[in-house]
Amino acid sequence: MGKGRLEAFSDGVIAIIITIMVLELKVPHEATPAALLPLVPVLLSYVLSFVYVGIYWNNHHHLLAASRLVSGAALWANLHLLFWLSLFPFATAWMGENHFAGAPTAAYGGVLLMAAVAYRVLQRTLIGLHGNDSLLARAIGSDWKGKLSPVLYALGIVSTLRAAWCAQLLYAAVAVMWLVPDRRIENTLGRQGGPG
Amino acid sequence: MGKGRLEAFSDGVIAIIITIMVLELKVPHEATPAALLPLVPVLLSYVLSFVYVGIYWNNHHHLLAASRLVSGAALWANLHLLFWLSLFPFATAWMGENHFAGAPTAAYGGVLLMAAVAYRVLQRTLIGLHGNDSLLARAIGSDWKGKLSPVLYALGIVSTLRAAWCAQLLYAAVAVMWLVPDRRIENTLGRQGGPG
Amino acid sequence: MGKGRLEAFSDGVIAIIITIMVLELKVPHEATPAALLPLVPVLLSYVLSFVYVGIYWNNHHHLLAASRLVSGAALWANLHLLFWLSLFPFATAWMGENHFAGAPTAAYGGVLLMAAVAYRVLQRTLIGLHGNDSLLARAIGSDWKGKLSPVLYALGIVSTLRAAWCAQLLYAAVAVMWLVPDRRIENTLGRQGGPG
Amino acid sequence: MGKGRLEAFSDGVIAIIITIMVLELKVPHEATPAALLPLVPVLLSYVLSFVYVGIYWNNHHHLLAASRLVSGAALWANLHLLFWLSLFPFATAWMGENHFAGAPTAAYGGVLLMAAVAYRVLQRTLIGLHGNDSLLARAIGSDWKGKLSPVLYALGIVSTLRAAWCAQLLYAAVAVMWLVPDRRIENTLGRQGGPG
Repeated sequence: MGKGRLEAFSDGVIAIIITIMVLELKVPHEATPAALLPLVPVLLSYVLSFVYVGIYWNNHHHLLAASRLVSGAALWANLHLLFWLSLFPFATAWMGENHFAGAPTAAYGGVLLMAAVAYRVLQRTLIGLHGNDSLLARAIGSDWKGKLSPVLYALGIVSTLRAAWCAQLLYAAVAVMWLVPDRRIENTLGRQGGPG
Repeated sequence: MGKGRLEAFSDGVIAIIITIMVLELKVPHEATPAALLPLVPVLLSYVLSFVYVGIYWNNHHHLLAASRLVSGAALWANLHLLFWLSLFPFATAWMGENHFAGAPTAAYGGVLLMAAVAYRVLQRTLIGLHGNDSLLARAIGSDWKGKLSPVLYALGIVSTLRAAWCAQLLYAAVAVMWLVPDRRIENTLGRQGGPG
Repeated sequence: MGKGRLEAFSDGVIAIIITIMVLELKVPHEATPAALLPLVPVLLSYVLSFVYVGIYWNNHHHLLAASRLVSGAALWANLHLLFWLSLFPFATAWMGENHFAGAPTAAYGGVLLMAAVAYRVLQRTLIGLHGNDSLLARAIGSDWKGKLSPVLYALGIVSTLRAAWCAQLLYAAVAVMWLVPDRRIENTLGRQGGPG
Repeated sequence: MGKGRLEAFSDGVIAIIITIMVLELKVPHEATPAALLPLVPVLLSYVLSFVYVGIYWNNHHHLLAASRLVSGAALWANLHLLFWLSLFPFATAWMGENHFAGAPTAAYGGVLLMAAVAYRVLQRTLIGLHGNDSLLARAIGSDWKGKLSPVLYALGIVSTLRAAWCAQLLYAAVAVMWLVPDRRIENTLGRQGGPG
């Protein structure tokens, strides 16, 4: 089964998710610079989510670039990932409008956690399809970032019971950690003149 | 006539449909976990519709993968299917916000029924184009799922007169039945090294 | 200059236009069948616009399929067409919510008229690029439908001064006239084994 | 790394941005021509932004057509550009609804300025990847338009302190300057039979 339409459909869904989040930046009625101030937390949570969805798109791009084929199970593992990504606009808006309060920050962490789990399921499904000594498996390697992230999200969720800013810090730190693109796959593919 | 743009356009429309449904999850004003409780039925109906639209995208993917060409009639049969799919966000929101009451549940079943009919029309149009002994026709085979589903949707609609939960159960059962990807087409194509 | 991205971008914009129109079908608060009644005119205007946007997508598909290349002027002629198509959701909602009153019906006709003009400009730009004896020029031929439609839209706009239903009838008649897919291009391409 | 998905994802995001701006054209409740009058400034700012987003899509199209490959840094430079473009709907709506008042006009100029900076960063990243004597570098040449635009946006922002109409004039003038498509790249590619 070809991977072209899976890539195209995922591009479409991720493009819409990353764009409709901006609709939560409600236009203020006054035309003064001061009217933008209450929007600052909403804008900050938008920036964080934009970076996260961008990271997912980047990693998805590399993951599929290293895959030669997909299966029915991979299609559903991909839809499962898109489902959790589709909850980003809701979680982002709830957190931004409530100035990073505890419960919305925990809910945001929950969506981050489930998306990370769904991404790993998709990754395992594709590796299972290509074999453990495939280009894909070698390109992904030990995946320490993928193993560490869910732990940090869970820590963040627990920390909202005491201090929500601590969770924010953790979420931002994980984002920074991922901002470096996935050189493993890039390098492995580069050496092999792999697909793109 | 090539099938590339028909696939790309359908991917776009289905990606938008599956994503804008999440806009019905209105962000609560309070920042407490309890504020999420009233959203549970809306979330449940979102999950059901996400799975249904995912099923349609999956089957559409397989159907077009097994087709070599399209016609003007197929373009319109496809638009007809997209029209009924585009009513999913409306039917989903009406059902979710009214806690699965009778009339919205019947309306949801009506949209499911019409989408199923439209899918079969598209399938018949494509088989007519490729011939009854084509790879496509053999891959689809007897299509017992496609014949059974409309009957179960109709049963669901009728059952809302007595008990709406019975219709919910039927809709969920049909979704589970389809969740297994369309191995007929996958297998037939796989054996023939078909397109993807 | 390749035509691939022009097709992909147009597919994206048209897919979004055709889908966000459905957001005007506001979910009623009551859960009774009677609550759907006030939505009937909104639904009818949605169906009309869905068919019109579908016609534009179909014709755009055929037009580009018959073209080998595009130019900077064609990119802008295409954006000009997309601009007028992007006003469909507004015009559709205004007409539907006001039960097909005179002014909104005239405005809807104005958008139809401008989109038709923009389509002809795009067509002329592409023919100018390929030459008058090109496959494209022969496939389009005399284009009597393209010449007649703007006249009928203008008649519709004028008729709203007396009877808006007369304009509705004209708009619907033009849509039916176009529903038959553009067999000229399909046939010419078919005979030549043209691109798709 | 291939450029196909970067183009497809950017097409998706830009298509959504250019289309959701039209949602700010709120449907009036009255069905009279006079009800459209208050919408004129909103429509004007929509037209300006539609042209600007169209210019970005056009230039992006040419830039990527002249590139052979992308890198991880280019993916992020591209997401950075899409981030600033995603603020167009907000800035457009705020300016349009406040009849081109000073603060919103300055904010609109700020988004224009940041998008221009982001575009230049993407351009530099791609030139760095292909080398200073590449087809891409020669096609872009001195890029006087790209250097002049940020200066004019900054002038516009400053001028809102005195007269907002002066900023509007500057923004419109820059748009007109760009409306001529990027013939440098088009010509260089044309002479070389470059990709498209």
